[in-house]
Amino acid sequence: MLFAQGELLASAQAARAAARAGNTDPTSGVAEGLVQANLISVPRDWAYDVLLYAQRNQKAVPLLDVIEDGGVESKLAPGSDLRTDIPRYRIWHEGKLSAEVADVTEAWAEHPDLVSFLIGCSFTFEAGLTAAQIEIRHQTVGRNVPMYETNLACTPAGRLHGAMVVSMRPIPANRVAEAVQISGRYPAVHGAPVHVGDPDSLGIADLYSPEYGDAPVPLRPGEVPVFWACGVTPQAAIQASGVPFAITHAPGCMFVSDVLNESYAV
Amino acid sequence: MLFAQGELLASAQAARAAARAGNTDPTSGVAEGLVQANLISVPRDWAYDVLLYAQRNQKAVPLLDVIEDGGVESKLAPGSDLRTDIPRYRIWHEGKLSAEVADVTEAWAEHPDLVSFLIGCSFTFEAGLTAAQIEIRHQTVGRNVPMYETNLACTPAGRLHGAMVVSMRPIPANRVAEAVQISGRYPAVHGAPVHVGDPDSLGIADLYSPEYGDAPVPLRPGEVPVFWACGVTPQAAIQASGVPFAITHAPGCMFVSDVLNESYAV
Repeated sequence: MLFAQGELLASAQAARAAARAGNTDPTSGVAEGLVQANLISVPRDWAYDVLLYAQRNQKAVPLLDVIEDGGVESKLAPGSDLRTDIPRYRIWHEGKLSAEVADVTEAWAEHPDLVSFLIGCSFTFEAGLTAAQIEIRHQTVGRNVPMYETNLACTPAGRLHGAMVVSMRPIPANRVAEAVQISGRYPAVHGAPVHVGDPDSLGIADLYSPEYGDAPVPLRPGEVPVFWACGVTPQAAIQASGVPFAITHAPGCMFVSDVLNESYAV
Repeated sequence: MLFAQGELLASAQAARAAARAGNTDPTSGVAEGLVQANLISVPRDWAYDVLLYAQRNQKAVPLLDVIEDGGVESKLAPGSDLRTDIPRYRIWHEGKLSAEVADVTEAWAEHPDLVSFLIGCSFTFEAGLTAAQIEIRHQTVGRNVPMYETNLACTPAGRLHGAMVVSMRPIPANRVAEAVQISGRYPAVHGAPVHVGDPDSLGIADLYSPEYGDAPVPLRPGEVPVFWACGVTPQAAIQASGVPFAITHAPGCMFVSDVLNESYAV
């Protein structure tokens, strides 16, 4: 694993400190070049199911770190605190969203046996696309990436089941192949797209009404909607499976690590 | 996942049937083009530890399938039977090898809650090397690949700990870069080497006395020993951790699946 140094490291530490101090902004574009991660924390009794769900659905749930026994520090970011360093969290009870908050210290204290899973995030391969001058439209227009529940069922594991969630980026038709190749170099953080074009066959009725994130601006002529597996997939599983208790990040508000994207390039 | 068809599928089915009928030969070169897998089966009580060990040591323990509740059929090979379809098995008690047998039906019956893990195998990227006309020496001379315990500690998980086991292939110095790139295209089956040259710094005192497999023939002038993480790593963990009961394949005698190597190429 390659860790950032100097200014880049300082920018990651500053982002976590800002979230800890109360900043609730999404983390797109923050500490560029460093891995950001999705979070799901569940009681120990559910950890095996989550671990197996991740193994069986690696494209959607690529695990970067597992922190046990109520631990709050990830090895991806020494000195981090999972309870405070993400701008916004979601708290789930019986599969239903019960609160969106900036700090989960209190909820954490009530569940001292939480096991936390950090999951790869598309921001890593977005950096690769940007480096190749492929525009990331939602960044250009200052929105969160649109995310959709699909008709693709994940492979169940124990009590966990649910649909795959995908994120969408419009890509000019003549650059789709490059977008596939570039993101495919990062299999540990969702990798290549799961679907190119034709939202209908994914069960997406309206491209402009995503279940998570922000609605996209209208696609331009010659652009194709390209769909990548998304780290919000466990949140769909929490809902579908009625998980008794869970903490996650809020979509778009990620855990900023100290690890270089290149650590996960093939 | 891409499944073989026609003759290739028949060759995989024939290999499993032969093992089932008592054939105990190693599987190198069998059903070429198809994924072969390492096996470790443990009682349910140890499954979480193995799953987490795999997540934390993905290069050495890349999981391809997890079969629960004493199940014997892998989705990588419909109709397969994990108890009989591998040529030779090892049975472990309290971290010690207690038997090497051709059939584990009896041992399986005594432990009805086994969880089985199929782990990616270097045979997949060897096919890629062969396609690029990089000689696989141990195949040429009809030996098993040499495997070594190293001084690289795996990241522990629960009660499991142990050293990384690596396999070694001599590669001409002017083809090492290609060997890295080709194997790197298969991150789900060990991927790129963990070490190139200098066995000493891996803690390998004698390249010609491997802990598993067969001794290599003498390296030729201009050849460099190249080391890849190896799916025998869990067997080292079984020994180091004193796992009460486990079943594994015997090194070199793999589970032959119906899945094309290309399923795991990036």
